Amino acid sequence: MRRSDRIAIISKMLTENPNKVISLNYFSQLLDAAKSSISEDLDIIKDTFAVMGEGEIATISGASGGVRYRPKKTKDAIIKFLHELCKTLQDEKRIIPGGYLYMTDVIFSPEYSRIIGEIFSQLFIEYNPTHVLTVETKGIPIALMTARALNVPMVSARRDSRVTEGPSVSISYVSGSSQRIHNMSLAKRALPESAKVLIVDDFMKGGGTARGMMELAAEFKAEVIGTAMVITTAVPDKKLINDFVSLLILEGIDINENKVYIKVNDKLL
Amino acid sequence: MRRSDRIAIISKMLTENPNKVISLNYFSQLLDAAKSSISEDLDIIKDTFAVMGEGEIATISGASGGVRYRPKKTKDAIIKFLHELCKTLQDEKRIIPGGYLYMTDVIFSPEYSRIIGEIFSQLFIEYNPTHVLTVETKGIPIALMTARALNVPMVSARRDSRVTEGPSVSISYVSGSSQRIHNMSLAKRALPESAKVLIVDDFMKGGGTARGMMELAAEFKAEVIGTAMVITTAVPDKKLINDFVSLLILEGIDINENKVYIKVNDKLL
Repeated sequence: MRRSDRIAIISKMLTENPNKVISLNYFSQLLDAAKSSISEDLDIIKDTFAVMGEGEIATISGASGGVRYRPKKTKDAIIKFLHELCKTLQDEKRIIPGGYLYMTDVIFSPEYSRIIGEIFSQLFIEYNPTHVLTVETKGIPIALMTARALNVPMVSARRDSRVTEGPSVSISYVSGSSQRIHNMSLAKRALPESAKVLIVDDFMKGGGTARGMMELAAEFKAEVIGTAMVITTAVPDKKLINDFVSLLILEGIDINENKVYIKVNDKLL
Repeated sequence: MRRSDRIAIISKMLTENPNKVISLNYFSQLLDAAKSSISEDLDIIKDTFAVMGEGEIATISGASGGVRYRPKKTKDAIIKFLHELCKTLQDEKRIIPGGYLYMTDVIFSPEYSRIIGEIFSQLFIEYNPTHVLTVETKGIPIALMTARALNVPMVSARRDSRVTEGPSVSISYVSGSSQRIHNMSLAKRALPESAKVLIVDDFMKGGGTARGMMELAAEFKAEVIGTAMVITTAVPDKKLINDFVSLLILEGIDINENKVYIKVNDKLL
């Protein structure tokens, strides 16, 4: 195999396996090339990805060493993406009677969810999360794509508890906006003790659901290393949780004027 | 930029955007290279991917033409993956009191769901589905990854109907196994008329839920081009739907012997 052939395959495999350490031996055997050649291939990929803002390649030394790709966007690329996302969500056709914003198509979109997942992973990877935690239903696609970029499992709490998942832990929580009591449960086997959890959800208003997830994590003796939201409402200013990251801020929906006021969170980066 | 640099970037971008046609002009401008050079790069990537069983690169001619990558595994690679999946699921620790099999970790795994999604896309891409349809909750990760591989939107029916999604269409259906009546609803704006729908779910026993999704699709005047399941039970042999593909067959769980009988569907390929 020529160098350009090897680079095509290595580049594909690294892209497909974010944050996974792949040994040089693996590539060496797969591509029938000396490890020194693979090393040179990796140097080329590393430099090119860096120059083009296509992510970070790192070589890990030691017995379990190898090469690892991590998605990493430039600040400009992230801001540009978020402005486009705002523009998509500002469409007046998204306003739903009652003053809601229809955004299911966006958060369920394979492409948007992938990019948002990569941004979340970039923001929290240094805290070494071992699991991404969400609650059904709408947070699942973003949580899955975040877990994929981090190369960790995704776990989703349920709003009921199912007999098909074995023993589970349930908590009750008060929704911050509706003041109603809800339940949330997670199968005992879904999360080991001492997990380091990144909480991910699509939307936060009062913060009750997010606080519920924190309490659920505490029941599992897990450490919450961060909370990541796609959209947070500007009001109420005071949420039931203090520490979170939100990509966008929903300032309001004016039903009379048919206008959606949403902006990029300028404290994000 | 040298050829090997360009190949690293093109290979990454194609991998990240399955089934999306990207124009040669785009690469030409991004990489500051003549279209003829990009064409040669693509020939190299195409041949290497084909030789290594890493998917299919096709050049689409015409005004909206360009290059497109599709995941495509060899039959052997699919069978090998499915045998590994069986082995994972056969673990006696997965047996849950009541005779259920715990598999949430597998179907929520970013890696398993990606590979299963690619297999489903490979099996149905020739029917040109425009949407992947599932119902909350457990089918969502596999449906999302299938939609990602097909480059189409994923839509998920709900078991209730939410005021935050606007007008919706609801149907009632009888669960094949429990004989209970359930509801399923989908926001009117989630699926356009004349969509070509691929139904995806994780598990099928009686087929009631799958039939519910077919009826829901019919309410939207959508054509169902196929139904894809990860696991189907061997019993009942007669399901409420006729036409479906299942990767694995669950033959039974012996609680006394602590054994899970699950096999690769040998009629699959």
